[in-house]
Amino acid sequence: MQDLDCLNALLNCFTKLPGVGYKTAERYAYRVVEMSRDEASHFANAIMAVKDQVKFCRTCGNFTTGEQCRICATRTGDTLCVVAYPKEIAVIERCHAFNGTYHVLHGVLSPLNKKGPEQLNIKSLITRLAGGQIREVILALSPDVEGEATANYLAALIKPCGVKVSRLATGIAMGVALEYADELTIGTALRNRTEV
Amino acid sequence: MQDLDCLNALLNCFTKLPGVGYKTAERYAYRVVEMSRDEASHFANAIMAVKDQVKFCRTCGNFTTGEQCRICATRTGDTLCVVAYPKEIAVIERCHAFNGTYHVLHGVLSPLNKKGPEQLNIKSLITRLAGGQIREVILALSPDVEGEATANYLAALIKPCGVKVSRLATGIAMGVALEYADELTIGTALRNRTEV
Repeated sequence: MQDLDCLNALLNCFTKLPGVGYKTAERYAYRVVEMSRDEASHFANAIMAVKDQVKFCRTCGNFTTGEQCRICATRTGDTLCVVAYPKEIAVIERCHAFNGTYHVLHGVLSPLNKKGPEQLNIKSLITRLAGGQIREVILALSPDVEGEATANYLAALIKPCGVKVSRLATGIAMGVALEYADELTIGTALRNRTEV
Repeated sequence: MQDLDCLNALLNCFTKLPGVGYKTAERYAYRVVEMSRDEASHFANAIMAVKDQVKFCRTCGNFTTGEQCRICATRTGDTLCVVAYPKEIAVIERCHAFNGTYHVLHGVLSPLNKKGPEQLNIKSLITRLAGGQIREVILALSPDVEGEATANYLAALIKPCGVKVSRLATGIAMGVALEYADELTIGTALRNRTEV
């Protein structure tokens, strides 16, 4: 893009967003040029507001603007759902099937990315379990290699505390045609078949 | 996304970028949360810098931070290339095959979007041609319905000025397998065949 330093600087900022390459960043930067000044300043202020206001809940690690997140402040219960990232809480909340509290690990075990147990929010999870109120921990981690490893590690860690540990069911996704499901998924679905 | 007003506000800003829906905007907003404060403030400043500094060249309508764009300031020549949007200048410049000046219409004729000749940067194009220095106008407009209509309209307007009018060649794109080219393209390529 031409000799405009400010446009290039903005383009570089956009390429730092997930999944945005040069071409997409260029389109975004051109859109900013077309914005009204009010719209642009609203955009810039929104970025700084998020950066200045969003913190992590001291109890569970979820996003919050206060000390505790909305969920920790309003819910009690004996079931705790462990997720890897705060955004996954939003996904689970949207299905209205869980009414307990959460705990965010802020990542999964991943030796290649230098993420060991010390880099995850595990210590405070054990402290919460030691409180004695939690009777079941649901591990809501993605069923991939790193998610499985993290789930196994956590299960071995939590079980000695006398807390029930469960995982989200794996199987064929709702609405998927059987012929398009992969072998691994069908194998798991067969093993975990439920009685009708 | 939870009850965080500032995150929702940023998410809404991101959905105004071209091709960005709710899910993508959510990913972008979460990425902003993960940014360092410096990175975020650099991002916010870059948006305002673009908005405050980027103007349109008074000669051709291209982006510039001064009065005239870099191309108008440094090049003379008797060939003028007409494009619909400033970003298309960058695309043509990258191929290093054109050394003349440009003129940006800032759109194409599109009755459905209430874009008539008065809404486009056509008046100043005619003024430039009246100067008498331009001998050829290349219409570099997309070969779709609106681009064709705009090209025909401009050709009828420019030819009486005694200026040669040409268009970018249409045909099979380089590297495309013939079997995947559509009928309309092959038809055009046949009609516009070149002698070897």
